Amino acid sequence: MTRETADLTDEKRLNLAIPDPQTAEDLEDLALGDDYALNPDYVDMVVDAADRGDTERLRELVGALEPADVADLMGFLSAAYREEVIPVLDPEWLGEILAEMDDNLREEVLEATPSATLARALEDLDSDDAADVIDDLDDRKRAQVLAAMDEGDRAAIETSLAYDDETAGRLMQREFLAAPQFWTVGQTIDHVRESADSLPELFFDVYVVDPSFTPVGALPISLLLTSKLETPLAEIMEPVTEIAVDMDQEEVAYIFDKYHLISAPVVEPGGRLVGQITVDDIVGVIREEAEEDILALAGVSDAGRDASVVDIVRSRLPWLLLNLVTETIAVSAIAIFQDQIAKLVALAVLMPIVSSLGGNAGTQTLAVAVRALSSKELTSANARRIIIREMSVGVMNGLTLAIVMGLATFAFYHNAKLAITVGLALVANIFTAAVGGILAPLALEKMGRDPAVSSSIFVTFLTDFMGFFAVLLIAALLMP
Amino acid sequence: MTRETADLTDEKRLNLAIPDPQTAEDLEDLALGDDYALNPDYVDMVVDAADRGDTERLRELVGALEPADVADLMGFLSAAYREEVIPVLDPEWLGEILAEMDDNLREEVLEATPSATLARALEDLDSDDAADVIDDLDDRKRAQVLAAMDEGDRAAIETSLAYDDETAGRLMQREFLAAPQFWTVGQTIDHVRESADSLPELFFDVYVVDPSFTPVGALPISLLLTSKLETPLAEIMEPVTEIAVDMDQEEVAYIFDKYHLISAPVVEPGGRLVGQITVDDIVGVIREEAEEDILALAGVSDAGRDASVVDIVRSRLPWLLLNLVTETIAVSAIAIFQDQIAKLVALAVLMPIVSSLGGNAGTQTLAVAVRALSSKELTSANARRIIIREMSVGVMNGLTLAIVMGLATFAFYHNAKLAITVGLALVANIFTAAVGGILAPLALEKMGRDPAVSSSIFVTFLTDFMGFFAVLLIAALLMP
Repeated sequence: MTRETADLTDEKRLNLAIPDPQTAEDLEDLALGDDYALNPDYVDMVVDAADRGDTERLRELVGALEPADVADLMGFLSAAYREEVIPVLDPEWLGEILAEMDDNLREEVLEATPSATLARALEDLDSDDAADVIDDLDDRKRAQVLAAMDEGDRAAIETSLAYDDETAGRLMQREFLAAPQFWTVGQTIDHVRESADSLPELFFDVYVVDPSFTPVGALPISLLLTSKLETPLAEIMEPVTEIAVDMDQEEVAYIFDKYHLISAPVVEPGGRLVGQITVDDIVGVIREEAEEDILALAGVSDAGRDASVVDIVRSRLPWLLLNLVTETIAVSAIAIFQDQIAKLVALAVLMPIVSSLGGNAGTQTLAVAVRALSSKELTSANARRIIIREMSVGVMNGLTLAIVMGLATFAFYHNAKLAITVGLALVANIFTAAVGGILAPLALEKMGRDPAVSSSIFVTFLTDFMGFFAVLLIAALLMP
Repeated sequence: MTRETADLTDEKRLNLAIPDPQTAEDLEDLALGDDYALNPDYVDMVVDAADRGDTERLRELVGALEPADVADLMGFLSAAYREEVIPVLDPEWLGEILAEMDDNLREEVLEATPSATLARALEDLDSDDAADVIDDLDDRKRAQVLAAMDEGDRAAIETSLAYDDETAGRLMQREFLAAPQFWTVGQTIDHVRESADSLPELFFDVYVVDPSFTPVGALPISLLLTSKLETPLAEIMEPVTEIAVDMDQEEVAYIFDKYHLISAPVVEPGGRLVGQITVDDIVGVIREEAEEDILALAGVSDAGRDASVVDIVRSRLPWLLLNLVTETIAVSAIAIFQDQIAKLVALAVLMPIVSSLGGNAGTQTLAVAVRALSSKELTSANARRIIIREMSVGVMNGLTLAIVMGLATFAFYHNAKLAITVGLALVANIFTAAVGGILAPLALEKMGRDPAVSSSIFVTFLTDFMGFFAVLLIAALLMP
């Protein structure tokens, strides 16, 4: 970013009506830190210009950024400032900026932009990106925008929208480079030169197809450049990994990651090539899927970086209310044995330690299991072995903790029975945590549910209940 | 995988000395499910062949897989079975299989393989992958393997090893395509054809350099193919995003994700081009970094899919012992007020609900904050706004939960003071959770530490302590 050639920079800046390209380059250096994140000072400069109502300065500041950085900037501004920035966005860039934006910010910008401007902005995007943006419009505006577009662009976007969200069909571009297997390298290169207009801006592989347009191989275009012109494609092509058009994007990401793919052909159920997915769309999917796991394990859905307090409360409160219910059930174990506590208050002190350690041990097992499931390192091929291993770990951790806590309890309370009570309860609870932590996500996965969602509330309930119950039951038995 | 051309399949199978290509293709269909994960049945077939000591069958089964799938298979086998599989691995493929393997499995295979075989296997790999594998060898064997390699390959690997682990220098390949800016498209294509041998197998961009070999632009090779031969590179090149050779791999991944890069030039401090990083190496980094956050938040490091029970205990017990210490401190709040509990046992029943809800609210905030920090959506540019927002969410969630739990408590115990006690304590604790959940990761980030590590134990301690303390203190004040 910081070392663009003068030529290009000039050209781009002129479009944005910035008089002095030197300033623009300086601004760009200022905008991004060494880590390519937006500089807080730069955000302040934007806020400052907006406060002063200095549209020219705003245009200059925003114009110095890449689309991804403008999208990022919007996330750092509050709604009032965004309203000032939206009108200065160059229409030519608007499409790309929209494609980079978070969903809830995007909706705001979409609402504030006339349909005709949107139609123009989206025509320059790849069909997958355009469909992604259009999907965020309400029905009326969507119809207006589509009506204002070229017929070809509209058709491509409508086809894309016909596929379910988060499937290969949605991720794919309908433009790609295909060649019959009897062609030579030279013929293929000639074809590329002749049909440059109908090809996507970026492509990485040639898909070799049979007469029914089914992919039978692929070759990277770098191989096209380094091979002899007279070589037939069939001779140098490599096996191809196909993506079914209805495949879930998480599966697509798994395949790209596993086989280090740069692009892959997407095929209809009959095997016919209908599009391609490129790795740049997959990088985002991989990050998003991993982030979803982090949030799901914590019982929270991300309301988005610009969500209001009410949005966030709405995204978190249901989980907390559910937790209130499960925890109420868990403490019923205490209510049942409360005479025991009245007799020996130390139990009320020690009990939370036993349930807390169980909760933590369960969370550990759960996080490892969820990660292993999503990377397919844990499948029915090794589930039995992993379950046994987790149980063994539970026993060993439980025994070690029990000895430490038992000794500490004895040292503090000089009560052997109390020490034995917490020790035994701890072994039982850490073992329960291990069993719950591995079986809950496995069971959810088997049921076709997301193992990250709702398994943590179950495991927490289990270990809290078991922690209270085991301590008080053993106490009742040993110290009646 | 399932639709390779007959030609290619034949060729590959013959290398592996499998007599009947039809069988090999059938085997491949059998090996992978629709989701491209290894079929459990296939793993059973391998185990079965190993049990019977049928080396031919093993060779056939393993030979039908891609290197990534062989690496995967090794993870599903126990150590005893792996020992049977290692000898049948085709030496030609060994390098690629090693590059795909998990670290702890790899170490095992490396130990079992003679240095001369390893040297041959690694010569075929890109220098970054080879360095990655070599890094896992002990010093003596590493010296042996390097000594057995070609001088050129050895030098490339040694240069790679000179960079710190998890930096751009380690991720980069030293082979790339560069061209001076005065060249035309045609000259560049001719150069590629002439110097095919010194180019990497795969490349996606031409880096345009100035006389001091500093990148001044880049263009995708698809643009090379679709542009007129007489066009000068300087005219069609695009701005280039450079990666500093000592940049952390997490930063590199952020940049690739943000700007949708396919490859990027790596430069030395002076600006000189020394290598390139391609997106296929980054996909793994993005997944790994997100997985590390999941595990760190749960207080566990992944011991690896083949870790022994003892390894796993070692990776989890320290955290649980630390948790035992913090939880002991937290329950000291109960110990101080235990007379209060002796007077009113209901407090012992209700207290854990207050701390558990606080813990969950804290975990929610923490997970969102860690995610936002690692995607650089939360920086000093918006920290103040986000902190205020989290506090507001804490107050709203706290008040809502307090009303629900207060009413439930009153309905059950018919004790208004008790209901008010738990209500007030809940507001205090959910607010504490919000403050701790956002400030702890921000503080760790500011100190240059990983915000995912150790912030959850702090937040859990905080909410447990506050849960007990607030309930009992308010009870002591309201019901002396």
